[in-house]
Amino acid sequence: MSPGHEAESAATADLGFARLDLDRARRQGAPEVVFGPGKSAEQITAIVGELLQREGRPVMVTRVEPDAVVPALEAHEGGEYVVGARLAVWGRAEIAADVAHVPRITVVSAGTADAAVASEAAEVARALGAVVDRIDDVGVAGVHRVLEVSDRLTAADVVVVVAGMEGALASVVGGLVEGPVVAVPTSVGYGAAFDGMAALLGMLTSCAAGVVVVNIDSGFGAAMAAFRLARAARRLAAR
Amino acid sequence: MSPGHEAESAATADLGFARLDLDRARRQGAPEVVFGPGKSAEQITAIVGELLQREGRPVMVTRVEPDAVVPALEAHEGGEYVVGARLAVWGRAEIAADVAHVPRITVVSAGTADAAVASEAAEVARALGAVVDRIDDVGVAGVHRVLEVSDRLTAADVVVVVAGMEGALASVVGGLVEGPVVAVPTSVGYGAAFDGMAALLGMLTSCAAGVVVVNIDSGFGAAMAAFRLARAARRLAAR
Amino acid sequence: MSPGHEAESAATADLGFARLDLDRARRQGAPEVVFGPGKSAEQITAIVGELLQREGRPVMVTRVEPDAVVPALEAHEGGEYVVGARLAVWGRAEIAADVAHVPRITVVSAGTADAAVASEAAEVARALGAVVDRIDDVGVAGVHRVLEVSDRLTAADVVVVVAGMEGALASVVGGLVEGPVVAVPTSVGYGAAFDGMAALLGMLTSCAAGVVVVNIDSGFGAAMAAFRLARAARRLAAR
Amino acid sequence: MSPGHEAESAATADLGFARLDLDRARRQGAPEVVFGPGKSAEQITAIVGELLQREGRPVMVTRVEPDAVVPALEAHEGGEYVVGARLAVWGRAEIAADVAHVPRITVVSAGTADAAVASEAAEVARALGAVVDRIDDVGVAGVHRVLEVSDRLTAADVVVVVAGMEGALASVVGGLVEGPVVAVPTSVGYGAAFDGMAALLGMLTSCAAGVVVVNIDSGFGAAMAAFRLARAARRLAAR
Amino acid sequence: MSPGHEAESAATADLGFARLDLDRARRQGAPEVVFGPGKSAEQITAIVGELLQREGRPVMVTRVEPDAVVPALEAHEGGEYVVGARLAVWGRAEIAADVAHVPRITVVSAGTADAAVASEAAEVARALGAVVDRIDDVGVAGVHRVLEVSDRLTAADVVVVVAGMEGALASVVGGLVEGPVVAVPTSVGYGAAFDGMAALLGMLTSCAAGVVVVNIDSGFGAAMAAFRLARAARRLAAR
Amino acid sequence: MSPGHEAESAATADLGFARLDLDRARRQGAPEVVFGPGKSAEQITAIVGELLQREGRPVMVTRVEPDAVVPALEAHEGGEYVVGARLAVWGRAEIAADVAHVPRITVVSAGTADAAVASEAAEVARALGAVVDRIDDVGVAGVHRVLEVSDRLTAADVVVVVAGMEGALASVVGGLVEGPVVAVPTSVGYGAAFDGMAALLGMLTSCAAGVVVVNIDSGFGAAMAAFRLARAARRLAAR
Amino acid sequence: MSPGHEAESAATADLGFARLDLDRARRQGAPEVVFGPGKSAEQITAIVGELLQREGRPVMVTRVEPDAVVPALEAHEGGEYVVGARLAVWGRAEIAADVAHVPRITVVSAGTADAAVASEAAEVARALGAVVDRIDDVGVAGVHRVLEVSDRLTAADVVVVVAGMEGALASVVGGLVEGPVVAVPTSVGYGAAFDGMAALLGMLTSCAAGVVVVNIDSGFGAAMAAFRLARAARRLAAR
Amino acid sequence: MSPGHEAESAATADLGFARLDLDRARRQGAPEVVFGPGKSAEQITAIVGELLQREGRPVMVTRVEPDAVVPALEAHEGGEYVVGARLAVWGRAEIAADVAHVPRITVVSAGTADAAVASEAAEVARALGAVVDRIDDVGVAGVHRVLEVSDRLTAADVVVVVAGMEGALASVVGGLVEGPVVAVPTSVGYGAAFDGMAALLGMLTSCAAGVVVVNIDSGFGAAMAAFRLARAARRLAAR
Repeated sequence: MSPGHEAESAATADLGFARLDLDRARRQGAPEVVFGPGKSAEQITAIVGELLQREGRPVMVTRVEPDAVVPALEAHEGGEYVVGARLAVWGRAEIAADVAHVPRITVVSAGTADAAVASEAAEVARALGAVVDRIDDVGVAGVHRVLEVSDRLTAADVVVVVAGMEGALASVVGGLVEGPVVAVPTSVGYGAAFDGMAALLGMLTSCAAGVVVVNIDSGFGAAMAAFRLARAARRLAAR
Repeated sequence: MSPGHEAESAATADLGFARLDLDRARRQGAPEVVFGPGKSAEQITAIVGELLQREGRPVMVTRVEPDAVVPALEAHEGGEYVVGARLAVWGRAEIAADVAHVPRITVVSAGTADAAVASEAAEVARALGAVVDRIDDVGVAGVHRVLEVSDRLTAADVVVVVAGMEGALASVVGGLVEGPVVAVPTSVGYGAAFDGMAALLGMLTSCAAGVVVVNIDSGFGAAMAAFRLARAARRLAAR
Repeated sequence: MSPGHEAESAATADLGFARLDLDRARRQGAPEVVFGPGKSAEQITAIVGELLQREGRPVMVTRVEPDAVVPALEAHEGGEYVVGARLAVWGRAEIAADVAHVPRITVVSAGTADAAVASEAAEVARALGAVVDRIDDVGVAGVHRVLEVSDRLTAADVVVVVAGMEGALASVVGGLVEGPVVAVPTSVGYGAAFDGMAALLGMLTSCAAGVVVVNIDSGFGAAMAAFRLARAARRLAAR
Repeated sequence: MSPGHEAESAATADLGFARLDLDRARRQGAPEVVFGPGKSAEQITAIVGELLQREGRPVMVTRVEPDAVVPALEAHEGGEYVVGARLAVWGRAEIAADVAHVPRITVVSAGTADAAVASEAAEVARALGAVVDRIDDVGVAGVHRVLEVSDRLTAADVVVVVAGMEGALASVVGGLVEGPVVAVPTSVGYGAAFDGMAALLGMLTSCAAGVVVVNIDSGFGAAMAAFRLARAARRLAAR
Repeated sequence: MSPGHEAESAATADLGFARLDLDRARRQGAPEVVFGPGKSAEQITAIVGELLQREGRPVMVTRVEPDAVVPALEAHEGGEYVVGARLAVWGRAEIAADVAHVPRITVVSAGTADAAVASEAAEVARALGAVVDRIDDVGVAGVHRVLEVSDRLTAADVVVVVAGMEGALASVVGGLVEGPVVAVPTSVGYGAAFDGMAALLGMLTSCAAGVVVVNIDSGFGAAMAAFRLARAARRLAAR
Repeated sequence: MSPGHEAESAATADLGFARLDLDRARRQGAPEVVFGPGKSAEQITAIVGELLQREGRPVMVTRVEPDAVVPALEAHEGGEYVVGARLAVWGRAEIAADVAHVPRITVVSAGTADAAVASEAAEVARALGAVVDRIDDVGVAGVHRVLEVSDRLTAADVVVVVAGMEGALASVVGGLVEGPVVAVPTSVGYGAAFDGMAALLGMLTSCAAGVVVVNIDSGFGAAMAAFRLARAARRLAAR
Repeated sequence: MSPGHEAESAATADLGFARLDLDRARRQGAPEVVFGPGKSAEQITAIVGELLQREGRPVMVTRVEPDAVVPALEAHEGGEYVVGARLAVWGRAEIAADVAHVPRITVVSAGTADAAVASEAAEVARALGAVVDRIDDVGVAGVHRVLEVSDRLTAADVVVVVAGMEGALASVVGGLVEGPVVAVPTSVGYGAAFDGMAALLGMLTSCAAGVVVVNIDSGFGAAMAAFRLARAARRLAAR
Repeated sequence: MSPGHEAESAATADLGFARLDLDRARRQGAPEVVFGPGKSAEQITAIVGELLQREGRPVMVTRVEPDAVVPALEAHEGGEYVVGARLAVWGRAEIAADVAHVPRITVVSAGTADAAVASEAAEVARALGAVVDRIDDVGVAGVHRVLEVSDRLTAADVVVVVAGMEGALASVVGGLVEGPVVAVPTSVGYGAAFDGMAALLGMLTSCAAGVVVVNIDSGFGAAMAAFRLARAARRLAAR
């Protein structure tokens, strides 16, 4: 076998420019998700096709501009593009059908400017089969706004908190609810917000014990974490 | 009412130098945990006494040196000090009795030098009622060592990954298991490790989707995150 | 006149190693405050003596260890050392007598570990003639603890918020009260707290409009800011 | 009530994409201010309308480009756009009528390049009812320029210092006046100015005691802080 | 001799705007490589001409946009532009002919988005006479993908690992092969990736002993490092 | 006198948007230099006019784009725009006539990409009356290139070293010459160059004793430092 | 099999607190090296014993204080402690016997203060079978000192450059020799050296193409890299 | 000649652990200065002896603790230790005798805590033959203190400004005097002073044109820079 194109194993598809992990759905319950930046429209179209054929739905492309994903949406039926979230999704419902206890995830954001990240979190979670409740613009500078929605927060199996600037919402919510809290710092803010650094450090050092953190602006990461947590809770509950 | 000593509400105990959150156990399923640094032995003794009397067990003091906690251990029966973890615990078993669905947590660390943080994670999780499996010294530079323990990793409800230096173990484990992975960066390393910064950034940007991160060296935070999951599971089971 | 020892002006005292600003009390309503680090006991004794003689009280030395200030306390009557605050003060009451409109300052801290900084803020403010109400250990992870003391917060002319870790208390208080909020980030915390950087950035980017910030651990700076306000009020009253 | 649209409380208006704090004027003496970035023209128009109807004037939108706010200006009478400050304001005068002792705020900037931030500070302060004196281009490299305007500085109830590069003007002014000094670091400068970091650190560590700092480029924050300070001074003066 | 244009030594060509190191090929086995940024098309054309005439091939221009290099490609025959790598090369084969023991270099990248950097590494190495095997998209989150290509990795004389985000691939590969591993962090990723900082720190602190690192995005640096090794090998072989 | 427009002192011209330091030429031997960024074409035209009329030549505007300075060049005769340096100058020769001992300045840069900064340094120095020798592209990776020009380096009264990337040229030159070496780090480079940070730190920690440093990319600052030296020399000569 | 002690595979020894990689010598040509920090004397003694018995020599413990390794040296014959390098070594010669073409490594350091790191590099390289030439105190501020030793530099198969402060020696050496240059930044220096950051960034951005870098103060890493390079060169030479 | 001890050239003394630059006095007018940290008392004694014998005076050792230099002071006559400056000097006067126009250097510091750095600057400058005027504790928060000493500042050939915290004194002095200003940031301060970073950035971005900067706490560097400037001025004056 010449270097560069060995025989594909069952677990990997070698497209030349990409090596897809075809074992992901078996191993982790959902297919590989495609990271959009740096991929051409042709590459995205090919990868999506391969994943749809081999792994089943949902197939997702994250952080993708419309131009780069329109060809894939035209080539492969059943996909849709969520503008604010810069997310393309094929086949939201399939995993949900397989879910005995559908997880309830609340995505709460601190400001209207955090909407794009909150939207990515919510849409990825929905694609993975969750029931999502989304609450926007709950800033701690008017803490009564948090308390007003505390029922919706405590009702969730997992709460995803999306906040930029100082990210204090994670601490307040982390102290109100008993279930898992996944905090997403956003790059919203200016000056000393340092593109999300202030919120990131604030969430990592939150005085609310057990709050966990994902990368800046990673609504996707939060949704995946929530999905991992919900699966684990289902498994524990079923014992 | 004079400033400085208002009447205590049911939810708060005002010790003058501290205001204990007595509503924590009701709201979140476990009493407030005491952060050791900056507190005198007298303050710790008083706080532990108040929590044991009002909230029940377990009561924990984290990041505490022996000198600062020996008086509390002498004054209040049933406590013990875990040397490596710098942790004092009173009454490990009580919450566990209350847990229908006991979570299984695997704490895996990348090197022997990460043992103190791994120990804090494991002991706090045990105090909160979890069954803990601990695996030390599983560096990715010998990736076969990770694969050898993959059964113990996939068997866990939650995997806590403790790693310093580049923190790459979180990515490898995050790709192997389907459940939640809580990554704890440690300050182990020198030079460009920058007291845990390298591991922290590495874990936040892990290519394994859905890995979540807590503060540097915070074994405690990882255990609390795992505990939040167990509470979510209990609730799911009750639906 | 030879270089090194020109004639002193009325506004400056040249002690050789130090040039005291004797115009400070006239210009700003309080004598120069002595920054302790890097000064010998002999230097401190000499400076305090000069200020007491020329400028009147209060005279304060900040961030000073007992060894460096005991000689000054022995040489000059009427001083006292506040242990937690590492502060020496001579003559607390004198300025207060000169203040028509005594300000009420509430110093609220997020955790017991912030006590040293809160103490510096409170003691400096008292020395300058304020009435101080101090509330410790009001963490936002139990937000009801903040709401319970909201009357004491809104009653203040200035609220000083002292918090380490993520510093979120500043945002919550900043949204509750209408008066000035001076936020003091502390170096309490570990890991991603980065010696107060997390709290500093969080307070600077607070979503509560009009919160102002002083240097990390600078209880002194917060008290001086509050004192500036009192002077402004005196002047307004005189219009 | 279905998730997503609970009944509005008296204190909150739920617009779906935003939850307005309708209690702000009662609690803090001025309505919520709208942070422009990340909001569409439609959202801004709706929010401004709601605030004008429920809370009264002034209503302000900060950091907003003309395109995003022209529809709101067309839809709601009485607004105006301040180009340099990127600020839209409806109804400057209303609060002023309510002010017994109109506060005098001097906004002094270090260089012509700081004008946009100084303008935001000045216009927001005017909208909130202050009398504003603005002095531009007072660099400390010609310290006589500072001394020439010292009367205008000492005449103010609050001085707002706007400076980029090394931000040294805050220290010089902080030593000249007795009243509150609010320092605003700006992102003016290049190289080691690091987008305002040099000025921010310099102002936080100013040797002039009691200088307080707001976020980089936050003329808005400085004006809000000045407004808080002026209100407090009025209250104190009235006792 | 007037200042500004001294006589050229044998080792330097003074073009006025540039001083070419004509001794480089003798001293280090390959001509100076031209760093594209900040040079005009005219300058590049002149430098390439001079190097081709004096030093022989290959002549390379790195990090160059097409507009800046097209005139040089038109003026000097035998060149070609590699789009993804932003690299122009004249005369790939000449050095190779001079190499007794042709080195085999494997360039392995962690994700499709790393392709541009991997391409620069591969093309520069080929120009210098190496046989290059390139493997893309071998992420550690599916560690079986690494193991599947381990034969191609261990077969190489030098492995160049190109990875962004957390850069963990360097550690896994560093533990699998016995030969030199040159790690290239890339600026792929967002948020806490901080433009390659996360990968850089991770690679520098890799638990795999003896992994070496070059600058962020410097595929060129990695190829040059590999070329230095090949020269060392030739010399060892000749002993 | 109404606030906003006090009578001008002899030492200051108040243009409303700017307060010119008219005492600069007397105090420091050269008029104020205009920092271009953030100033409109109208403002630049007015400031240049004022300075030409009151202070004499040279008048310089730095870091200015052509659009912003063309109106001033059209309105005021005798000016010229230096493209690479983004510098406008009126009246280069006037100060030179006043200089008894004309200083010789050598501006040496490490790479062709540093030319814009080197050009600013050279042109400002010439405008202030210096004789400038400029040597470009003297990288330390071919250290013989430095040694070849050592005569031109040691002949200078001041050497300005302009270098990006690691900035090592400052150390090598600093060890070769006995006179002052002013190092200018540039933002040339990528990745770990961090916009000039690598060169800045390298120059500040240079093992060559007595090398001094100015801001990143500040050719202007280096030229002014050289000019300060020349004034000192004139004075020494006059003793 | 109970959790915590599964049967050992041939490739791993599970000591409970450590999992030794027994496959390292086969896979990479040298046994696992023990990282000293955080390990007790008992643990080190046990690990060294296991490695000596299973893997053969050399066995090394790095960054270890005498107290922690004396018991191991007493328990296992043939070891020695190198004071400056904080290194313990058992059995230097064994690998060397296996080396056909013994590699020649020159370790050159910039200052006397870099000696500890240079010593670690030299001793580890010798233990692995290299012939080491060590040259200390070759600062670039006296560049003639570098040129004087250029024969010894060009004679080496690999040059290890150890330098703190600005680290410029790597660039000068990188331009003089044709073979591999491994740069080790050290934490020598103060102020803007930032514990090795200045040297690290400087070496990563070196204008000498193909210089590679290891972690700050990691003489060990440089030696291992040199060893990898020597192995590769031997293999190439043998083809 | 065996590796490790080649014949010494006239320009270098090889002591084994150190390679002294014996050409320094001829090339740069003063012998090499010994950097104390990391050198043993034996090494210092040997180096000092060599320099005294070969190069003449002054010989200086900087940043050296008494224990490490007492043996050298006992072995070699004529030396003295300056406690605050951590400096040992042999033979202050010799260079001065060679100086036609003795330079006058004013060292001005912002606070008493900066005295150690100011002392190093002053003592090194004196050892090199300058007449030094030292002014301590001239903070800009009392700007009249600066103006009071302006005659002593303008009388100097070079002014060295030593300041920690925000370092604003450099800007004020830089605008007052016409001669060279060398700014030394110090690590005095706490919190956001970040060990001198605030002062460093502030001085680099000073609005006073032509201020130059040396490393944090490097009184030595400032004195050497002043010495370079004085030599240049003498040379210019002699033309």
